[in-house]
Amino acid sequence: MDKPTLQKIHNLIKPYIHRSPVLTSQLLNTLCEADIFFKCENFQKMGAFKMRGAVNAILNLTDEQKSRGVVTHSSGNFAQALSLACKDLDVKAYIVMPENSPQVKKDAVKAYSGIIIECDSNINARETEAARIQKEKGAAFIHPSNNDDVIHGQGTAAIELLEDYNDLGYIFTSVGGGGLLAGTILAANHFSNGCKVIAGEPKEADDAYRSLISGNIEKNKTSNTIADGLRSHLGDRNFPIIKEHVEDIIRVEEDDIIKAMKLIWERMKIIIEPSAAVAFAAVLKDKKRIKNKKIGVILSGGNVDLSNLPFK
Amino acid sequence: MDKPTLQKIHNLIKPYIHRSPVLTSQLLNTLCEADIFFKCENFQKMGAFKMRGAVNAILNLTDEQKSRGVVTHSSGNFAQALSLACKDLDVKAYIVMPENSPQVKKDAVKAYSGIIIECDSNINARETEAARIQKEKGAAFIHPSNNDDVIHGQGTAAIELLEDYNDLGYIFTSVGGGGLLAGTILAANHFSNGCKVIAGEPKEADDAYRSLISGNIEKNKTSNTIADGLRSHLGDRNFPIIKEHVEDIIRVEEDDIIKAMKLIWERMKIIIEPSAAVAFAAVLKDKKRIKNKKIGVILSGGNVDLSNLPFK
Repeated sequence: MDKPTLQKIHNLIKPYIHRSPVLTSQLLNTLCEADIFFKCENFQKMGAFKMRGAVNAILNLTDEQKSRGVVTHSSGNFAQALSLACKDLDVKAYIVMPENSPQVKKDAVKAYSGIIIECDSNINARETEAARIQKEKGAAFIHPSNNDDVIHGQGTAAIELLEDYNDLGYIFTSVGGGGLLAGTILAANHFSNGCKVIAGEPKEADDAYRSLISGNIEKNKTSNTIADGLRSHLGDRNFPIIKEHVEDIIRVEEDDIIKAMKLIWERMKIIIEPSAAVAFAAVLKDKKRIKNKKIGVILSGGNVDLSNLPFK
Repeated sequence: MDKPTLQKIHNLIKPYIHRSPVLTSQLLNTLCEADIFFKCENFQKMGAFKMRGAVNAILNLTDEQKSRGVVTHSSGNFAQALSLACKDLDVKAYIVMPENSPQVKKDAVKAYSGIIIECDSNINARETEAARIQKEKGAAFIHPSNNDDVIHGQGTAAIELLEDYNDLGYIFTSVGGGGLLAGTILAANHFSNGCKVIAGEPKEADDAYRSLISGNIEKNKTSNTIADGLRSHLGDRNFPIIKEHVEDIIRVEEDDIIKAMKLIWERMKIIIEPSAAVAFAAVLKDKKRIKNKKIGVILSGGNVDLSNLPFK
């Protein structure tokens, strides 16, 4: 992957995404003793950065593939992203979802014209069902994070951030499946002058942290974290990039995540989801390293269930 | 009040306020069948439009007055606004607050260097205490809404909105003490080509609606509304402006307010307070009138207690 190719990808997907705003907060700068630039992907279409990768993946299909549709298994933001990207690009999206997914998530997928296929609530059932759709419909499988086109698409958030602020010392993201982190690393490598990338990860689902130590892709036995977008594990397409280039993975406790989320809600008056707060929680835990530096933080999304908030 | 004077006021306060962003939402436009431009005063300094009026009131004091400080009675956004404006302008701010005010509000005033004077929780005690401070300290009393300089300052939000979008058919605000509504009317009269101003008001505190009917300033016997910024009544400085020029005052139920607030949080990913949601609740109740028109909505503030939200 080189700079012109990434640039081309960004130009290709631009008509289908928002250039999300970069916000700052004097109070949070004072608190962190640093200049923080928040890339607000909570304002992205469908409310998360996932739209970028989904659009890029579909644009890279052949016309014949497009005519047969795409399939993924996800109950989260990628299900909505793929559905909306497909709606915009007139492609059928088959979304395999556990039957016990919240109705609000099913409704969101339907609102974006996604076709829901329900399955049992375990990873085997999801994969089996997705494989069946691939075979029956000839649909192309798009993995939510372990797919080169998805990774490159997710990297465009950092490209925009670095276009706006070319002297960042660090960019913080959260890490779940690894698509955003790997994409951000590629962007930092090609569009900055030595900007390093640090990931925040919930301690309750610290597979990426452990993978970095062992050198192999580790999985989570349990994933009891409020950051529901970060429960998945890395894959063979994104792990090599992360392994080679990530500066650090900082693990944060559940209380840290809720505290970081509340700080952003209260002080910036914007709504971010717990998975997005993980990146800022890592910043708060790492104040020494960032002192007096300019840093970027990618706020990955803003889709939360307002009737079930963690604030007390 | 003429256009050049309002313009001068705006220029005078600019260094001390944010030019708050104007946001739009495709989904809410579709829902309302109109083009809605949200003036986001929730992103204003200290989280509400009140900063504008407070700054203007202080800038209009003589140096001698400034040296003796200012006093107001408020437990809400104006207490914070006056404190912060005074901090920025190096003036002492005496804030008379009921002793049972939430600690979080007291802390906010203290954080902005306001000097809190506690009193009993009734309007007589507040006024008596404020009068005592005026006498003892020689401090200038600044009313939160019934003060010409405050009214003119609040009008600058609409001036900015009309500078950005000069062809709005209506601007919606909420009405409590009447400062924002009267200021918005002055701005619309001088900076637009016939833009009309409509106010939303909680039915549970509909004093302004009743005042418009009776022609006199009516008060609320009870004010059981979640929109805690809108429980106060109009005054002799703002009522004449409102009476003569407001196009309509639309009363909204508590459920409408919560529904409007939730829609904005969910769809725009921004945090607004119940008092701000009242303006949008009025829009939702008045869809027929605004159909296919361009309208502005002033989202007045974003200071909410996250541990006590109304969403179920």
